[in-house]
Amino acid sequence: MKKIRLEQLALLPYIAKWLLLACIVAVLAGSASAFFLFSLDLVTNWRETHPDIIWFLPLAGFTVGWIYLHFGKSVEAGNNLIIDEIHDPKKTIPLRMAPLVLMGTVISHLFGASVGREGTAVQMGASLADQCTAIFKLAKKQRRLLIMAGISAGFASVFGTPLAGAIFGLEVLAVGRMRYDAILPCFIAAIVADQIGLLWGVHHTHYFVADVPAITFWTLCATLIAGVLFGLVGMIFAKATHGLSDVMKKFIKYAPLRPTIGGAIVAVAVAMLGSQRYIGLGIPTIVESFQHPVAWYDFLSKMAFTITSLGTGFKGGEVTPLFYIGATFGNALAPILQLPFSMLAGLGFVAVFAGAANTPLASTVMAIELFGPTMGIFSAIACVISYLFSGRTGIYRSQRGGQSKH
Amino acid sequence: MKKIRLEQLALLPYIAKWLLLACIVAVLAGSASAFFLFSLDLVTNWRETHPDIIWFLPLAGFTVGWIYLHFGKSVEAGNNLIIDEIHDPKKTIPLRMAPLVLMGTVISHLFGASVGREGTAVQMGASLADQCTAIFKLAKKQRRLLIMAGISAGFASVFGTPLAGAIFGLEVLAVGRMRYDAILPCFIAAIVADQIGLLWGVHHTHYFVADVPAITFWTLCATLIAGVLFGLVGMIFAKATHGLSDVMKKFIKYAPLRPTIGGAIVAVAVAMLGSQRYIGLGIPTIVESFQHPVAWYDFLSKMAFTITSLGTGFKGGEVTPLFYIGATFGNALAPILQLPFSMLAGLGFVAVFAGAANTPLASTVMAIELFGPTMGIFSAIACVISYLFSGRTGIYRSQRGGQSKH
Repeated sequence: MKKIRLEQLALLPYIAKWLLLACIVAVLAGSASAFFLFSLDLVTNWRETHPDIIWFLPLAGFTVGWIYLHFGKSVEAGNNLIIDEIHDPKKTIPLRMAPLVLMGTVISHLFGASVGREGTAVQMGASLADQCTAIFKLAKKQRRLLIMAGISAGFASVFGTPLAGAIFGLEVLAVGRMRYDAILPCFIAAIVADQIGLLWGVHHTHYFVADVPAITFWTLCATLIAGVLFGLVGMIFAKATHGLSDVMKKFIKYAPLRPTIGGAIVAVAVAMLGSQRYIGLGIPTIVESFQHPVAWYDFLSKMAFTITSLGTGFKGGEVTPLFYIGATFGNALAPILQLPFSMLAGLGFVAVFAGAANTPLASTVMAIELFGPTMGIFSAIACVISYLFSGRTGIYRSQRGGQSKH
Repeated sequence: MKKIRLEQLALLPYIAKWLLLACIVAVLAGSASAFFLFSLDLVTNWRETHPDIIWFLPLAGFTVGWIYLHFGKSVEAGNNLIIDEIHDPKKTIPLRMAPLVLMGTVISHLFGASVGREGTAVQMGASLADQCTAIFKLAKKQRRLLIMAGISAGFASVFGTPLAGAIFGLEVLAVGRMRYDAILPCFIAAIVADQIGLLWGVHHTHYFVADVPAITFWTLCATLIAGVLFGLVGMIFAKATHGLSDVMKKFIKYAPLRPTIGGAIVAVAVAMLGSQRYIGLGIPTIVESFQHPVAWYDFLSKMAFTITSLGTGFKGGEVTPLFYIGATFGNALAPILQLPFSMLAGLGFVAVFAGAANTPLASTVMAIELFGPTMGIFSAIACVISYLFSGRTGIYRSQRGGQSKH
């Protein structure tokens, strides 16, 4: 009994320490996310009212590429650098990762690249978190927990989904397995960072699934079929982005030229289509896909724009475009699968992401946080099937794999 | 590209096969759970209207012990046998586990032992699932997935919480780590088994958290403090049950005598208290603890009755008593922590279980399924802290540990 009491007593300083550290990480990451989200609103509004700015996208690409070439070599790997540092610690994640990815993303969005925002939030969260390693003289193992808390805090605060953020930080490191050693730091950092964002006045988009059908043999089967297709789309997206990136690196040695070319292609495509529909975050289209049928090819166009933007070196991340691709693809599947389009938009939103990022549990919980618990069972099936069907590679190349998914 | 297509095509038969197997497991486990729940209703009603039956509890204990001594040696280890077979496969889980644990539990409940029902559902689910191993000539690895699906299906259908059931099957095998190889079988089996139960007409109790406070500094801190206490209670429960069981085995060699003595103690205690409040499942008291303040010592009394019942060899399981202990303890903490008692009853309900079973994610998801998403953040904190604070041992001794929890 004495040993028990001592073991539990020893936990109190552990918990106190990690509450403090997680809260520091949360304040840093949550504030950074809030500032980032406000900046995104600002530049997105500007871009929408000044559509001709798209012609400067090649120049913006060059600028982002040039800045990273001269000041950002050490942080260019982005999310993959963070995942690698957690698995195989080498040196402190440079603080410059935060301002560089913030600047790169805001420029990318201002001029109309098709990119996301979770990469930015995660990189700011993790690099800010890792600065505490030296300040608090943390050991190797503790540093790992701190960086993971930074990932969770960044993800949670940028999407307003604290539980999904917490699980994402635990789940994203490896495919098909999860360790719980960072469970306290990740949950506390995610929950508090989300609150910090709200305190700063952040408003997250509300996606409304108007119509969740009853659980029947057919609705379950249709969800399953949709899950397979969502997984394939997630896989194609990940492979194509990596493929384009590899080709660009092989044939264009001068890095700033790559996003210049990417930017030119996107600008010409926008001009030819005469529409801004597929650039930026695309939140209005995502919201639309929950409300009424959208064009069946929207998801293909968004894929092309995003693969071109990210594959050539624009900054921001994959996740919001994946939400867009999934929601519009789900919307397009609705008449074929005889399910409500708002429900399929919601399933696609989370399940394409689940497949591309290999995070089925975080995605399922995200569905419950965003769409409510009635979507839980359908989302779980779609996310698990998509995860299985998306193959071994995902959007994060540093994610450890090895084990088969089944 | 060709390789990709082949890899994905190869998944189709895998998915088809596991959908079929998971559905078979779900029909078996879901139907067994439904039959079990109906039986429980029947015997509980009978017991409540015939309180004098408690005097036969020693005889009932002897009967259960005698049956297991003569026919149940091979399945006596119950949930631990199942966990062991998954980690270290030796031989098919005997089919007799299902009728024996069903009979043992129904007798235990009819005569008024304080036991639960998840052990019964999980053991029926897993043993029925394992019978398919021979029929479908499954290999060792596949058998593992099948048994895990049986656990998920049993848990999901007995509590009406499909997602928590699915995650429970994945999470319960080891402390602090989770593998995803059984993710498809566990989710499908859990979701379908729950539906099968509903098709049979099962009604699950609805627990209503009337008042979830806003997320503030104090409500988060109070939840944290509650989490620590829930973890300690979970730990004490697990250690005391194991401790009593070890003492009984050491000093009383003739197994049927142990539940005879346990039954006599429970019967005398009930007579002395003049109350049936602490025997059986105790659902009415759990519901009460969400509605109005209950006696502060209710959780202690229920602990004493349950430790005596389970530690001496009655059958059923730990989880529903843990819900009871947690809900009444949370209720008692409400005035001290200045939180609504229905909210703290809900937190205790899931968090004492999270700590005692080392399943923080399943418990958090269960809270969302039972109480709604507004309880998500508070439940996550309470369950994670309780998990950390409950120490290395849990109610399932075969659960693999080794790794530190933090």
